[in-house]
Amino acid sequence: MPQGPITSTINNMADVWEAYRDELDGVECQVRGNLDSSVALVNTVAGHILNSGGKRIRPLLLLLSARLCGYTGRDHHQLGSLVEFIHTATLLHDDVVDDADIRRGQRTARKVWGNQISILVGDYLYSKAICQAVDFRSQGINEVLAEACKKMAEGEVLQLYYNGNPSMPEAEYLKIVEHKTAGLIAAACRMGAILADASAAQQDALFQFGQHLGIAFQVADDTLDYTANGERLGKTLGQDLRQGKATLPLLHLLHHCSEQDRRMIIDRMETRTLTEEDLARLIRLMSDAGSIAYAADRARSYIDKAQQDLNLFEDCTAKRALSVAANYMVTRDR
Amino acid sequence: MPQGPITSTINNMADVWEAYRDELDGVECQVRGNLDSSVALVNTVAGHILNSGGKRIRPLLLLLSARLCGYTGRDHHQLGSLVEFIHTATLLHDDVVDDADIRRGQRTARKVWGNQISILVGDYLYSKAICQAVDFRSQGINEVLAEACKKMAEGEVLQLYYNGNPSMPEAEYLKIVEHKTAGLIAAACRMGAILADASAAQQDALFQFGQHLGIAFQVADDTLDYTANGERLGKTLGQDLRQGKATLPLLHLLHHCSEQDRRMIIDRMETRTLTEEDLARLIRLMSDAGSIAYAADRARSYIDKAQQDLNLFEDCTAKRALSVAANYMVTRDR
Repeated sequence: MPQGPITSTINNMADVWEAYRDELDGVECQVRGNLDSSVALVNTVAGHILNSGGKRIRPLLLLLSARLCGYTGRDHHQLGSLVEFIHTATLLHDDVVDDADIRRGQRTARKVWGNQISILVGDYLYSKAICQAVDFRSQGINEVLAEACKKMAEGEVLQLYYNGNPSMPEAEYLKIVEHKTAGLIAAACRMGAILADASAAQQDALFQFGQHLGIAFQVADDTLDYTANGERLGKTLGQDLRQGKATLPLLHLLHHCSEQDRRMIIDRMETRTLTEEDLARLIRLMSDAGSIAYAADRARSYIDKAQQDLNLFEDCTAKRALSVAANYMVTRDR
Repeated sequence: MPQGPITSTINNMADVWEAYRDELDGVECQVRGNLDSSVALVNTVAGHILNSGGKRIRPLLLLLSARLCGYTGRDHHQLGSLVEFIHTATLLHDDVVDDADIRRGQRTARKVWGNQISILVGDYLYSKAICQAVDFRSQGINEVLAEACKKMAEGEVLQLYYNGNPSMPEAEYLKIVEHKTAGLIAAACRMGAILADASAAQQDALFQFGQHLGIAFQVADDTLDYTANGERLGKTLGQDLRQGKATLPLLHLLHHCSEQDRRMIIDRMETRTLTEEDLARLIRLMSDAGSIAYAADRARSYIDKAQQDLNLFEDCTAKRALSVAANYMVTRDR
């Protein structure tokens, strides 16, 4: 368990994974152990998505936050596991909402077992996680987790509300991002601090850290939808637009392109069609208008804020790891 | 607020509604007040189903349980409201899972706003209710509510697992019914007792009461699918079979009919087709085999158990009302 003064061993994300491998194995062990429903099909479906190669970012941030605040126990494995259950529940529902066939390079649960099962196993994972959170007998943990779940659902509804709407204000885009993505990440960081009996100031700082990092993460992810090396990320470019979702680079472009191009983009959002030719043109337009750079800068500015949130804490391995993890969020696949 | 010794004023369900009208109005007030999301669409969709004429059975049982245990405060309005939110969340998801177009005589949320919104607003209502439960700062309330939600999801998955399967054992049917329906009703009763700081024995008795009543309620409801006055209940007969669901009267019939009739029934379950002629024949066969009477007897036997669960308590208006409500569960529309 890495603790104590800063060492030079944490320089990149691979170092983080390596340094906290045992801790993350502890989380994995809990994830497996918690798949204990008396209804076998629940465990099969949940196991399918839980074992599909997710990076356990939220449990990692939770355990690093706990360690940063001096936690020396082992309950963070269970707490990390239940946060991953909540995240997985949202993925199961998202895949139904988005009609998604592939996630992390394999068939989605809804593609294998159908939408019905995906909805209900999502419900199960969510309530199972709440059961486990309640077992911690911590008012703080229960409050922050329930609030995060509520915000996630609101963010998802707001996103649907604006679906196909090219006039969505940037502030509403950021509200969606903050609710649907940053909320649970911020909650994970605060939960680590609560577990460590950290001061209110430390809890707030880590919550803010997670909030800023979460927004940056989603903005960067939305930008990757127009820039990523598709094969490496297992994604097809332009999927957000095909689903009618206006994200930050597109919103920027819509304010900085010709009326003719604007009409083309709106048409593609409405008809949910985007040829390879359209996509190439869109990416060129984004490049000319500086839309990708704009979104990348916004993501970077949130990461800078996240780094400042860590100023409250003394230098140590966990702090270094959180800092490296924050940078990693906006530099994936570039 | 009716309390004290038994009066002769509670003789039927109308008397119960009348006697507790103010209390139920308090619940309604909370239900409306809790629709306070910053995302307007959430409130619109949730309001659509919450204001569609549900009878608030669960809040009623909760508040009667609280009064039975001597509760004199007003927090049961909020607790009743959040239980109704959870119930409503399950209805939103059920309607997606069942492809339902009509509920309580009006178009389902999924029919008006689509499956995606229904799934996400269901998620919202669920997590909003958990937030409110957490605000009670009661370990007991949090535990019983989260456990009930987990069981509901398991029951729904198990029901899907057996969908179209005419060989489902009766014990599995009862497990489904207990999980998907009785769990939340039992939780509502226990939550009322917890609010009243009732003894463990009283809490257990009311939980058992809710459990027995809940099973009876669902068995009776499943039986109504073959016997109800359709127009009065706003239901088309034979819907369960059309959806591939084997319920107690059908399981009984499958064990007591000719091989030829059995093959006909299995064919209709598999093909999800049931003509009016098929239905008439089915109901005749059930009548001949005593299947309806069998299911009705089972429901009645669970209500008898529920009535016995009340023996622990002194006679009073709330006890009389619970007893009347229990009988009402198995005598609707007959």
